[in-house]
Amino acid sequence: MQLISFIKADCLSYGAVKDDGVVDLVRRFGDRWPTLRALLAAGALAEAERAVHDSPADFTLEGLELAPVIPDPDKIICVGLNYRDHVAETGRTVTPNPALFARFAGSQIGHLQPLIKPTVSDMLDYEGELAVVIGKEGRHIPAEQALEYVAGYSCYNDGSVRDWQLHTSQYLAGKTFAGTGAFGPWLVTADEIPDPAALTLETRLNGEVVQHSETRLMITPVPQLIAYISTVLPLLPGDVIVSGTPGGVGMKRTPPLYMRVGDVVEVEVSGIGVLRNTVVAE
Amino acid sequence: MQLISFIKADCLSYGAVKDDGVVDLVRRFGDRWPTLRALLAAGALAEAERAVHDSPADFTLEGLELAPVIPDPDKIICVGLNYRDHVAETGRTVTPNPALFARFAGSQIGHLQPLIKPTVSDMLDYEGELAVVIGKEGRHIPAEQALEYVAGYSCYNDGSVRDWQLHTSQYLAGKTFAGTGAFGPWLVTADEIPDPAALTLETRLNGEVVQHSETRLMITPVPQLIAYISTVLPLLPGDVIVSGTPGGVGMKRTPPLYMRVGDVVEVEVSGIGVLRNTVVAE
Repeated sequence: MQLISFIKADCLSYGAVKDDGVVDLVRRFGDRWPTLRALLAAGALAEAERAVHDSPADFTLEGLELAPVIPDPDKIICVGLNYRDHVAETGRTVTPNPALFARFAGSQIGHLQPLIKPTVSDMLDYEGELAVVIGKEGRHIPAEQALEYVAGYSCYNDGSVRDWQLHTSQYLAGKTFAGTGAFGPWLVTADEIPDPAALTLETRLNGEVVQHSETRLMITPVPQLIAYISTVLPLLPGDVIVSGTPGGVGMKRTPPLYMRVGDVVEVEVSGIGVLRNTVVAE
Repeated sequence: MQLISFIKADCLSYGAVKDDGVVDLVRRFGDRWPTLRALLAAGALAEAERAVHDSPADFTLEGLELAPVIPDPDKIICVGLNYRDHVAETGRTVTPNPALFARFAGSQIGHLQPLIKPTVSDMLDYEGELAVVIGKEGRHIPAEQALEYVAGYSCYNDGSVRDWQLHTSQYLAGKTFAGTGAFGPWLVTADEIPDPAALTLETRLNGEVVQHSETRLMITPVPQLIAYISTVLPLLPGDVIVSGTPGGVGMKRTPPLYMRVGDVVEVEVSGIGVLRNTVVAE
């Protein structure tokens, strides 16, 4: 099942993609679960699936304004330096544990929404990543059971304002500018992706491939990320783990390749789809 | 005015301290503003102040279970390395911009709630800090106007799990363990604290002073923090800026001084009050 969050009549809504249309799940479940996050928290994916199976599409997908898949997660946990070729291009060394930093929910955008180049920087960079969405609350989750806690997967572009990211040792400032975290187009539920380590990840800038890797090359794979993070604090339904970017980022090219106004950036993950955004000025 | 969040009959509530009692503001405003954050977002501090002035206390403060002052902020932004003596003891150098990292809301506790030493570490450290709570949404806020965006101030103990903080270059993991971010006892509204740079900050462990400094010694003062952060993304009512800790942290002592189960840790800020927590095992 492909689940989307979208804006309709100025309201945040959610639904499922069926053929070329959308089954409006807020119409069916909105009184109990007003958001996709609330649906996940209720453990109601199977119920949603039955409703989608039994219903015709309510409207077409085309022209619909998509929101970030989970617009309001309790936590967005990003992983730095999780592919060897990216660690190498940054000149850092591999650490035994994953480097975690945060992004705030207000910095997110959906598929086809404008990706915003801030006024204060000309160093806006792409980072194509696999996003993991949690479906069930858990603490101290063993890696062997971790995939049971995943609701599904999506594409993420962890847009990074490099000069602000490198103002200090801590990345947060450059990683949470408004309108820089693209998340979509939809959530593909975990039943359709049995192994998150068997996916291909590609980023294209104006049609040219700038990152191409496979999720099996993650240094800390998804189950171990979930185990590590849930040692720190409970993971909640709707939480998003942005699992790291492979080599090929713009900052480390010669000459550097930053995104400019008008550029079109795409992140494609096999079995999920293509997340596409156009860069606009703040 | 001193505003608190508290738990009563298993429900999150909020109110104002009056003499030795509490005026229950949820009873008066809960239908419109169910949380202190919602009250701030509505710009209703003056209305709350009138209600507190006109009402007797509904119950006593003693014995009430306090929650973190803002239990559900959209963002908690912590500042690292913001006092010169702390920068010096860490062996780092002063950067022109503040080092920002996040803490997740689910890691917070209130005054007198247990501060949790995780099972996986014996390196739980204190960090006494001044917390700044935002009262009005703003982006690109000029430093000269920044204090107009502050609802008030509180004490914060940015409890840090040092080995996990130093697993990688990014602090987040060690800074957001469940039950380590103490925030209270209350919000003192900004009208009572005209200058956040004129406060004394002290941390005591089992009654012994372990940190003692003045907020005028911040490297990036509160107005400049607000200007910097709001360049990145909008600040919203209820957002919390945890403005950094002075020298004296346990990790940098010889021998190191970590908190143990049974320890009592206090953070006192002049004009605000004392935040007290006892360490318990996870």
